[in-house]
Amino acid sequence: MKNSVLVIGSVAFDDVKTPFGERQNALGGSAIFFSMAASHFTNVRIVGVAGKDYPEEAIKMLCNHNIDTHGLEIADGNTFRWGGVYHEDINRRDTLYTDLNVFADFKPVIPREYRQTPFLFLGNIQPSLQLEVLEQIEDPKYIALDTMNLWINTALDDLLKVIQKVDLLIINDSELTLLTKKTNLLAGLEKLHMMGPQHIIIKKGEHGAFLSYNTELFYSPAFPVKQATDPTGAGDSFAGGLMGYLTTCKEIDFTALKKALVYGCVMGSFVVENFSTDGLTQLNQEQIESRFNALRNIVTI
Amino acid sequence: MKNSVLVIGSVAFDDVKTPFGERQNALGGSAIFFSMAASHFTNVRIVGVAGKDYPEEAIKMLCNHNIDTHGLEIADGNTFRWGGVYHEDINRRDTLYTDLNVFADFKPVIPREYRQTPFLFLGNIQPSLQLEVLEQIEDPKYIALDTMNLWINTALDDLLKVIQKVDLLIINDSELTLLTKKTNLLAGLEKLHMMGPQHIIIKKGEHGAFLSYNTELFYSPAFPVKQATDPTGAGDSFAGGLMGYLTTCKEIDFTALKKALVYGCVMGSFVVENFSTDGLTQLNQEQIESRFNALRNIVTI
Repeated sequence: MKNSVLVIGSVAFDDVKTPFGERQNALGGSAIFFSMAASHFTNVRIVGVAGKDYPEEAIKMLCNHNIDTHGLEIADGNTFRWGGVYHEDINRRDTLYTDLNVFADFKPVIPREYRQTPFLFLGNIQPSLQLEVLEQIEDPKYIALDTMNLWINTALDDLLKVIQKVDLLIINDSELTLLTKKTNLLAGLEKLHMMGPQHIIIKKGEHGAFLSYNTELFYSPAFPVKQATDPTGAGDSFAGGLMGYLTTCKEIDFTALKKALVYGCVMGSFVVENFSTDGLTQLNQEQIESRFNALRNIVTI
Repeated sequence: MKNSVLVIGSVAFDDVKTPFGERQNALGGSAIFFSMAASHFTNVRIVGVAGKDYPEEAIKMLCNHNIDTHGLEIADGNTFRWGGVYHEDINRRDTLYTDLNVFADFKPVIPREYRQTPFLFLGNIQPSLQLEVLEQIEDPKYIALDTMNLWINTALDDLLKVIQKVDLLIINDSELTLLTKKTNLLAGLEKLHMMGPQHIIIKKGEHGAFLSYNTELFYSPAFPVKQATDPTGAGDSFAGGLMGYLTTCKEIDFTALKKALVYGCVMGSFVVENFSTDGLTQLNQEQIESRFNALRNIVTI
């Protein structure tokens, strides 16, 4: 399908506590947040693994959002589970537990009918699995990659191989420093471009995001929400909005990526206002465009 | 004079150590950084106190930059001195000492010929002194106020009186939280507007700055510098660029304040690249406009 994006990532239950409430067994995982956000722009194909305990209604909800779940394996055992508590300063959190469960033995298999999907998002999972996915994909048009400090610290060789093969690397500012040993944004970006990707996005959470396109810079602030209830999934929803919008563009040029970044900020803002994926389920196009325009206006003189 | 701004603030020697070097007896203080930045836009009048040890060449440098120093009192004793060390993460610093010296007994007296200056910047000093200045000023057109956590914690009553009387309050994001008990930007701004000021600027350091104009929002990122050598004075230089530009505007409307905020970010970026006021002494208009345009381009799709 021309207009489609394939995502590989985690499928999880989240047990989350924030200053504004708590939620048990919340639908979570990078592939789910990404898919729900991207589904407002494009057709999504999901590759991941859940356990026998994963609810029918969740699959139904994904299908209702134009998300193809044929690549979502249901394995014997329980679904990956993450538990965390957010601080009063909502940007800080403690992980209480990470139960990999069925995710521990996950071997991603890309269904034959998915292999020519033009857009690919490698969600934040082990770099060796990301490499296995890349080997199964045929003639991709545009590949984006997310990762995290855990893989920078424990699987750097594999990660560098993946980074070399992608068009767009999406990381946050602390990961930039960890990966490049540079605290300065420009110095870090320069080093990162030399590792491979032509396009880099540095997420700064509530402080917005930078795009480095070859070496030209673009920046968007985050949308100022009235209440950040639960930041879980913000980064994946950002990536979902970004990649979802990109699939609708004729060319992946600087302008397309700039707009995509703003749509990423928009989708990130919707998800943090509520627990789990709640902020993404009832959204309509008008609400999305309204925040896109608000984010443009806020920087316009 | 129509095109002029009066600043009241500290005049100091700074002993600064950063990951990129150190400097003893550096010219510092809020009034000095503000004046040097504003002088690139307008005539500046400075009210403050220095000691007998304050060098002739410093006064000469200020005069060379169109800064009227008749309000700068030279008192018996030593100049205010601040010593600090910046961390590897340049956004964090430890104060080693704060020797008030002649600043301890400072009673600001506004020279008669300064009293009708249209623009007034109340730099970060004791709120009771800021109140004394307000009583001596005649028919000001526009008043801006800076403050800090120390005064929020120790002189809140006086500070609230000052806040009520100013047009523009400039504080950083942690001070917003401390003053309003709100961690959310929008909630904090709402509460702050109710305390008096129609215009509020929230500085977020390397993460840029928000302007709340009656409740409309504008945002500019900080200019991404290749090396932040010494952040001392960034906030005061920001205020200097902002107020300096405002004095050149026919009306203080939303558009004027938006541009002023960007000029503030520009002047802040020049000062952090070097120790002390070094980044502000050799600047020309072309360099300032170039960064202004760069900051506009970085957010333009």
